[in-house]
Amino acid sequence: MAQAREVKMQAEALNAFLAEVYPQIADDFRIDRVAPMEADIRLLTAERHLRPGGTVSGPTMFALADLGMYAVTLAMIGPEAMTVTTNAALDFMRKPASGRDMIGRARLLKLGRSLAVGDVLLYSEGMDEPVARAGMTYSIPPRR
Amino acid sequence: MAQAREVKMQAEALNAFLAEVYPQIADDFRIDRVAPMEADIRLLTAERHLRPGGTVSGPTMFALADLGMYAVTLAMIGPEAMTVTTNAALDFMRKPASGRDMIGRARLLKLGRSLAVGDVLLYSEGMDEPVARAGMTYSIPPRR
Amino acid sequence: MAQAREVKMQAEALNAFLAEVYPQIADDFRIDRVAPMEADIRLLTAERHLRPGGTVSGPTMFALADLGMYAVTLAMIGPEAMTVTTNAALDFMRKPASGRDMIGRARLLKLGRSLAVGDVLLYSEGMDEPVARAGMTYSIPPRR
Amino acid sequence: MAQAREVKMQAEALNAFLAEVYPQIADDFRIDRVAPMEADIRLLTAERHLRPGGTVSGPTMFALADLGMYAVTLAMIGPEAMTVTTNAALDFMRKPASGRDMIGRARLLKLGRSLAVGDVLLYSEGMDEPVARAGMTYSIPPRR
Repeated sequence: MAQAREVKMQAEALNAFLAEVYPQIADDFRIDRVAPMEADIRLLTAERHLRPGGTVSGPTMFALADLGMYAVTLAMIGPEAMTVTTNAALDFMRKPASGRDMIGRARLLKLGRSLAVGDVLLYSEGMDEPVARAGMTYSIPPRR
Repeated sequence: MAQAREVKMQAEALNAFLAEVYPQIADDFRIDRVAPMEADIRLLTAERHLRPGGTVSGPTMFALADLGMYAVTLAMIGPEAMTVTTNAALDFMRKPASGRDMIGRARLLKLGRSLAVGDVLLYSEGMDEPVARAGMTYSIPPRR
Repeated sequence: MAQAREVKMQAEALNAFLAEVYPQIADDFRIDRVAPMEADIRLLTAERHLRPGGTVSGPTMFALADLGMYAVTLAMIGPEAMTVTTNAALDFMRKPASGRDMIGRARLLKLGRSLAVGDVLLYSEGMDEPVARAGMTYSIPPRR
Repeated sequence: MAQAREVKMQAEALNAFLAEVYPQIADDFRIDRVAPMEADIRLLTAERHLRPGGTVSGPTMFALADLGMYAVTLAMIGPEAMTVTTNAALDFMRKPASGRDMIGRARLLKLGRSLAVGDVLLYSEGMDEPVARAGMTYSIPPRR
């Protein structure tokens, strides 16, 4: 397990990889920080992410949680584009603040050979209390 | 409970309401069918909903499930724009077929005064086996 | 997939298998019915399952959902004691009726090589509306 | 919110309250520690909690998570026996170690007027990596 806990991709490498495999969202999200079993991801909030009233939409928050889990998993296993979400459980607790980026703080709780399990807390930047919490499971394809 | 089971908004009224409160997604989704405690919603799949490889993205499937639950709830309680998602639990089971609309089949399991609970099965149109399943909880604001 | 849909263990065989591998709960639960991708399981409600006020406890309902998923999975793949729950998402919607058995109606939505996904609706016997709903994922060990 | 963060019941008071309202499980669980928005709960592991092979059963882990959330909620709002679980999402990640107590570390992420949302990490005592994770929602009855 010790070995699994070494970071294999830092934030810069993750951002480059995301831009390559998901070019259509590369302007929306940015990995801010990576540490063993942890990653912080930022939603660069723009008009297209908002619902009427100025709050970030549910699907955008889902995307932030999903990419946070993807980022922390890839940080630990290296570039594996085929890693896919199998389960997501989200609690929406508070309205996001309007006019702010959102930050997803992802941590891995288990990094197995075929499944990774983690959670992501979503914050409006500068706020102490989380807007949402997501538990996520990823399926990791077998090594060739 | 009998009373709660009368449909208050049919598909046409729901589509008009969605276009009014969520104009930015009115071209993406359409309510196809409403029945007591049930609604079918369609993703009019377009390029912008896809990930590389041509499959519908996770956030788009989340949006489809979320709107399916919104539609079936409003079908039963009438137009309440402020109804909000509090919990969503999603299992992603199969790849969506490429080049097809997706259909969300939503049903309400509980319609209480302050909470509605339901689930949504997501299909690629014409396929027998579900792509994803979502359990959803909505908070209904107190009546004025 | 056609092949996966043939029942490999009927209710009688499942009850015998449960009694062998989980003798401590054999008096609490009974498989009532098996069909392709479906199983009904019964909680033989007794004093030890109740909370003050006479309603079935949360952990007992969890056990009912968990065994329902186990039953339907084994019905389709045959006796595999090592199949384990990896994820469970439960919504508790209504109070169980007191003094009644509970019935869990389990269905498989996906039966893959390494994961089975399904859901279970829990009812107080004789009632129309579900007490709880559970989405469950099981990990199936690799074949030797 | 500051006000909500004062502990209203310490561990001793919670243990006394649990013994009164849930006498049948008072020998199984004990609140070890309370802090603002946090509580640790212990499963006093005994033969009756085990599955064949000596690991703690799934329903017992559900009970530990459920009581952890109950404890942290009551710690913050005071004795409210009628608080009920509405949603639970559990990931089972590792086998519990045999022959050990289990510890549930519960934290509240939201304490609203009608809903409390939190999560609980479950550990085998003395182990670094969690056995399971639970996201829980509780409904708080309206004040009389």
